[in-house]
Amino acid sequence: MPQYDQYEGFQVKSPDTWTEFHKQKFYTKPFGDYDVEIKIEACGVCSSDVHTISGGWGDQKFPLAVGHEIVGRALRVGPKVTLIKEGQRVGVGAQSWSCLECRQCKNDNETYCPKQRDTYGAEWPETGIVTQGGYSSHVRTHEHWVFPIPDELPSELAAPMLCAGITVYSPLVRNGAGPGKKVAIVGLGGLGHFGVLFAKALGAETWVISRTHSKEEDAKKMGADGFLATADKGWNEPHKMTFDLIISTANAFGSDFDLSGYLSILDVHGKWISVGLPEDETLQIKPQDLISNGVLVGSSHLGSRKEMLDMLKLAADKGIKSWVETVPISAENLSKTMQRLQNNDVRYRFTMVDYDKEFP
Amino acid sequence: MPQYDQYEGFQVKSPDTWTEFHKQKFYTKPFGDYDVEIKIEACGVCSSDVHTISGGWGDQKFPLAVGHEIVGRALRVGPKVTLIKEGQRVGVGAQSWSCLECRQCKNDNETYCPKQRDTYGAEWPETGIVTQGGYSSHVRTHEHWVFPIPDELPSELAAPMLCAGITVYSPLVRNGAGPGKKVAIVGLGGLGHFGVLFAKALGAETWVISRTHSKEEDAKKMGADGFLATADKGWNEPHKMTFDLIISTANAFGSDFDLSGYLSILDVHGKWISVGLPEDETLQIKPQDLISNGVLVGSSHLGSRKEMLDMLKLAADKGIKSWVETVPISAENLSKTMQRLQNNDVRYRFTMVDYDKEFP
Repeated sequence: MPQYDQYEGFQVKSPDTWTEFHKQKFYTKPFGDYDVEIKIEACGVCSSDVHTISGGWGDQKFPLAVGHEIVGRALRVGPKVTLIKEGQRVGVGAQSWSCLECRQCKNDNETYCPKQRDTYGAEWPETGIVTQGGYSSHVRTHEHWVFPIPDELPSELAAPMLCAGITVYSPLVRNGAGPGKKVAIVGLGGLGHFGVLFAKALGAETWVISRTHSKEEDAKKMGADGFLATADKGWNEPHKMTFDLIISTANAFGSDFDLSGYLSILDVHGKWISVGLPEDETLQIKPQDLISNGVLVGSSHLGSRKEMLDMLKLAADKGIKSWVETVPISAENLSKTMQRLQNNDVRYRFTMVDYDKEFP
Repeated sequence: MPQYDQYEGFQVKSPDTWTEFHKQKFYTKPFGDYDVEIKIEACGVCSSDVHTISGGWGDQKFPLAVGHEIVGRALRVGPKVTLIKEGQRVGVGAQSWSCLECRQCKNDNETYCPKQRDTYGAEWPETGIVTQGGYSSHVRTHEHWVFPIPDELPSELAAPMLCAGITVYSPLVRNGAGPGKKVAIVGLGGLGHFGVLFAKALGAETWVISRTHSKEEDAKKMGADGFLATADKGWNEPHKMTFDLIISTANAFGSDFDLSGYLSILDVHGKWISVGLPEDETLQIKPQDLISNGVLVGSSHLGSRKEMLDMLKLAADKGIKSWVETVPISAENLSKTMQRLQNNDVRYRFTMVDYDKEFP
């Protein structure tokens, strides 16, 4: 494909060798009228990266550079671009395309467009070129999925908001989290910590539900109003039918996953929204657990451009600080970081930085 | 308990002999200040009756007269009753008590009150007397659960609305069924037929989803705008992401229960509300089926007093006619009717009538 431009990035060659990253060149799609070309400066590390390269979410197109919490500079913009200016600091999240013409797209639901495409691992139909993620020198994306980053937000703190942040922000605002509402965040990991930060910033009474009390101090530092540990016998009893909304970041539905307990603390028609996506697991629901308070179980996928801009503005206005450990990008550090993430050895998010050394 | 009044009704003695009905006397609770005493004229036959007397929903208190779609005359009212007048034709549904003081009760959610009690099989705590249902001479109930029946509605058509009707009416109105909305009713049985009648009366575009086409003609006669049969290969393909709401009356979640297919036809954040309550079954949900359109799976329990009055008014105003087969009440006819119901030999609802012969 010599007619196409090339970028360089850290790719994984197959799920069997998913802990090995190789810096190599790859082709990128032709520069379109609505495209923005971005020189990458930082990229957050998401569990999706591990699920994808290790094969947990099924077949993928290799070799592949993952990473979809990208912050960088707009090097150039296509002739029809109106949303982004050259030189602007911008972000790209987990989605990079949708049709922008269907009912969903026209309704600020472009993340639910049947034709939506991911930032990495998706095939551009015209060329067969596979989209590559942010552990790379550059990324080239339609302006709709490129977001100006407010000056107040450092790149390494803004990056993880672009997937983890929006994943919890969207269901919070769509389900009314705000003053007078009582919200629980299940699981205090990368997603959960943003759940607490944003639910508080939106004005909701915010509780964290975790297995044990080990993260209680962190939760309080993030601003949580209350903390419940499901390992405590009868943890749910005093809270029955008092919560309006639960955002669950749990990504395993094993035997210690107490769905009945979670649903019992919801008020009538309260919602349990899962934003964790387990590998090959099924959610088992007893109809009796739904009927006694008429609750709803659902899920949520990223958020719209409009919500992304609102979220970044809220973060800038309220001085929200993501809890981030920065790691200089390199093949070795990507390998170590992915393995630490898989072992839950992270509080609460990694951002790869120092791109200039590897991609001068 | 000689100090208590007695009524007479058709009771079942145990789940082992659930097809045998015995006309016998039973005690009723003391007449309270807010109570209404009703001479019963008609009672709809509900699947709950079969689930209860056959033991499918667990242990019950026997001997028991079931029946919770009751219409009759208010013989007398307690000194503090303001909602009902003596002589009025009134109805009683599946619920007969709640605390009327908790957050749920004060919010028109009395059916979700943690202390709510059923019309039959519940124990009044002061006396230990077990509530008895409508296959009886009389019933005595707090005025909040007694509803004036509009003159336009014949007793035998109004009766099944008091449980089956309200069970689908409440989730329809609570989830916005009306002009411009597209609603599907899964399963065309007793509940489903009311789903069609009420969704149409509320102004929604109304579709029926059934296993086969056997009930398509009936569905159209009830007013359905469309009909889908899940036995047709690819039945859901042309309808993906187009429905706003599905009310499912399915009461079994076996291998031919195509939940993924149902969820696929919902638009973003559409709701699948189950009003069927299977015996000992678990709903299995693939998280992927929830996330691709951000849909919600929930349930619903009866409806409030306010909704009951609204529903009866709508039925009167729009001339809604329940599809009912009337059966003269007797021990033998109750036995036959319950067994026909268990075999789904009903289109679409039975109402027991001619009470004067058995209870002069």
